[in-house]
Amino acid sequence: MNLNQLDSFQWLSSIPVTESQKCDPASEKADVVILGAGPAGLVLGNLLHDRGIDCTILERSTRANLETRARAGFLAPNTVRTLDRHGLADGLKRHGEEHGSCEFRTEGGRFRLDYRELGRGEPHTVYPQQALVTDLLARYLDNGGRIRFETEALAVQDADGPEPAVTARGADGRPTRWRARYVAGCDGWRGAARRSLPPGAVRRHHRDHGISWLGLLAEAPPSLDAVGYAVHPRGFAGHMARTPEVTRYYLQCEPGTDPDSWTDERIWTELELRMRAGEYGPLHRGPILERTLIDLRSDVLEPLRHGSLLLAGDAASLISPSAAKGANLAVLEAELLARALIDALAHGDQAGLDAYSAGCLSSIWRAQEFSHWMIRLLHGTPGADGAETLFLDALRDSRLESLRTSRTQQDWFAEHYVGL
Amino acid sequence: MNLNQLDSFQWLSSIPVTESQKCDPASEKADVVILGAGPAGLVLGNLLHDRGIDCTILERSTRANLETRARAGFLAPNTVRTLDRHGLADGLKRHGEEHGSCEFRTEGGRFRLDYRELGRGEPHTVYPQQALVTDLLARYLDNGGRIRFETEALAVQDADGPEPAVTARGADGRPTRWRARYVAGCDGWRGAARRSLPPGAVRRHHRDHGISWLGLLAEAPPSLDAVGYAVHPRGFAGHMARTPEVTRYYLQCEPGTDPDSWTDERIWTELELRMRAGEYGPLHRGPILERTLIDLRSDVLEPLRHGSLLLAGDAASLISPSAAKGANLAVLEAELLARALIDALAHGDQAGLDAYSAGCLSSIWRAQEFSHWMIRLLHGTPGADGAETLFLDALRDSRLESLRTSRTQQDWFAEHYVGL
Repeated sequence: MNLNQLDSFQWLSSIPVTESQKCDPASEKADVVILGAGPAGLVLGNLLHDRGIDCTILERSTRANLETRARAGFLAPNTVRTLDRHGLADGLKRHGEEHGSCEFRTEGGRFRLDYRELGRGEPHTVYPQQALVTDLLARYLDNGGRIRFETEALAVQDADGPEPAVTARGADGRPTRWRARYVAGCDGWRGAARRSLPPGAVRRHHRDHGISWLGLLAEAPPSLDAVGYAVHPRGFAGHMARTPEVTRYYLQCEPGTDPDSWTDERIWTELELRMRAGEYGPLHRGPILERTLIDLRSDVLEPLRHGSLLLAGDAASLISPSAAKGANLAVLEAELLARALIDALAHGDQAGLDAYSAGCLSSIWRAQEFSHWMIRLLHGTPGADGAETLFLDALRDSRLESLRTSRTQQDWFAEHYVGL
Repeated sequence: MNLNQLDSFQWLSSIPVTESQKCDPASEKADVVILGAGPAGLVLGNLLHDRGIDCTILERSTRANLETRARAGFLAPNTVRTLDRHGLADGLKRHGEEHGSCEFRTEGGRFRLDYRELGRGEPHTVYPQQALVTDLLARYLDNGGRIRFETEALAVQDADGPEPAVTARGADGRPTRWRARYVAGCDGWRGAARRSLPPGAVRRHHRDHGISWLGLLAEAPPSLDAVGYAVHPRGFAGHMARTPEVTRYYLQCEPGTDPDSWTDERIWTELELRMRAGEYGPLHRGPILERTLIDLRSDVLEPLRHGSLLLAGDAASLISPSAAKGANLAVLEAELLARALIDALAHGDQAGLDAYSAGCLSSIWRAQEFSHWMIRLLHGTPGADGAETLFLDALRDSRLESLRTSRTQQDWFAEHYVGL
């Protein structure tokens, strides 16, 4: 999909709004309409509602679906501090696990980086995204926050005019129109916020890395007490703890692969081959609960604002999962956006909104750059010819060797791996 | 030129060798025939001759040409220590200048890295390559070392048999045949050593970076007391001190550019534009003494040995000049090769020769990886489309920003910039 060429759903402004809908201001108006109840939307909703800002979240899924959808799980120390500062970290402090090691397995052997002892000496907290979403949702609703489930935003209109609006379709299939002073697009890479940007309104930075992963969720305990990165001639394999009962695995596969063509047996055989289970011990096997295809893509818009439409989370910046940065960026952006919206709505001060985009983008680009480095560390080179493939693969091996042996490289890695 | 497809000059073995040539063993035989009198060949020649090994250097240029040909100039501390250990550093210790800063000039401003104060805290020594070559040559000849100028090696024959030989053409145009026990290919990327490798004998790793530079030598003092790296929308420009009277400049240009199409006036105007002379002060102008086109290419062979033919310097590994590693690798390899040949010829111990290739390649790949990182730091992205160019250029800007602000990134840079 080329966003630059995309028509911006302008036909939606012609959808008729009935008189009865116009007469129900409680359901059709909010100072801030938040699209999407992922980490970005829910942190934003909580922070705005805590400060008495009139806001509503529109979420296309059901609550049950939101609370079970497996996504990220590695929270950076700065993310934990941010959530804690706003009273949003009770669950993760109770149930999250500190995590400070990763293990690389390559043709040359394996080595471990205890990144908690390197760089700034900080660990990750492992807490599944669906648990964080469950916590954030419960707190928001307990405090009286408004959310419409099964309500899909279709388009944002007149974001650059005095009366922005959101057209949405509820569970009953009927379109409704929400008037807002600000719209927060936290509805992901394919969401209505991005789709509604008029051509030329923002610059798009994009890269298809030409690499795909099977994203797997196994009902099995973790197989090692570290993030596992296996660099193998057959492709990358990854291992990331989630809970004592569930583990995330990744398997590089051909782009366009049908995930359902991979049986449990084939998945475990391939994982054990690439993770070199013969040398380093078998994996804890269990039923594969989920298998999805993940195309490694990066996409950043700039600025993250078009009039009164502001973007956060994957809507602002899609990042490959290679360095587990996506949810962390989302929380950082949501806090910045909340502060800016509170300043604007409660104090009439627009400076925060004006600075929002630049404030996010330096962190986004740092994360993208590190994530890109990780992609090149973990994979061979698609699309190069013979001698060039050999060259780029040898550079990759040298990068791994440097990570194994150079303390300054390790400090750099640790700082960027957990930092934002 | 695709080395894999190249016929290996086998027609040369049919060149007739006359009886008179056969009867002159002094001119036609040496235990080690060294092809090329650049830094690799001359360091090797000196070390072998010092230990009484019978060797001869074949060099296709004149002595005068060798002693004036401008090339590299930045010697790493490890290179200086290596040369010093063998009594080859008198000139550079007397006339070389310590150098420990570089300055980046970008759209966002300029910043300086005093790399002598970062990482392991070591500076470069600036000493023009032609001065080093002059020193090495004088010492070699003063000690009675043998060299044939204006003698071009054409092919190495029977490197994998018991009687390797080199066919060469002297100043008089007549072919001669040199018998040797070992042949050291120090004759560069396009030399006879590389060309003589039979198809499949070694693996070739290659990358054309799609970027070209004008390599310029100006009769003018340096314009700043640092290496200057200018990242500009019109392309990269570089500034490197050589002597108080001569400065090296680089200007990124279209691949295929005719260097002579650039007048002195055009060169200085473009250099001042990209170096942002308007903001940071004018450059010291002077006549352009030399203008050559440099295509940024990387090329590494593995292993660096085929039977009794051993490769060092650019013949082993061509590296782009972006990180000034070429001459440093050459010296490191020459020392390792000298030690291995002395062990083999003086003590009958082959272990050093067997380990030579692996001993060099880890340094070569570390240097290639850093040099590749520098290429991506200093240039835009050739060949990408609009949104991808924006993405990759933004990563580049983020890398520069990280270098400006992150101490761990700076330490990493310093360690790799002066290290091998």
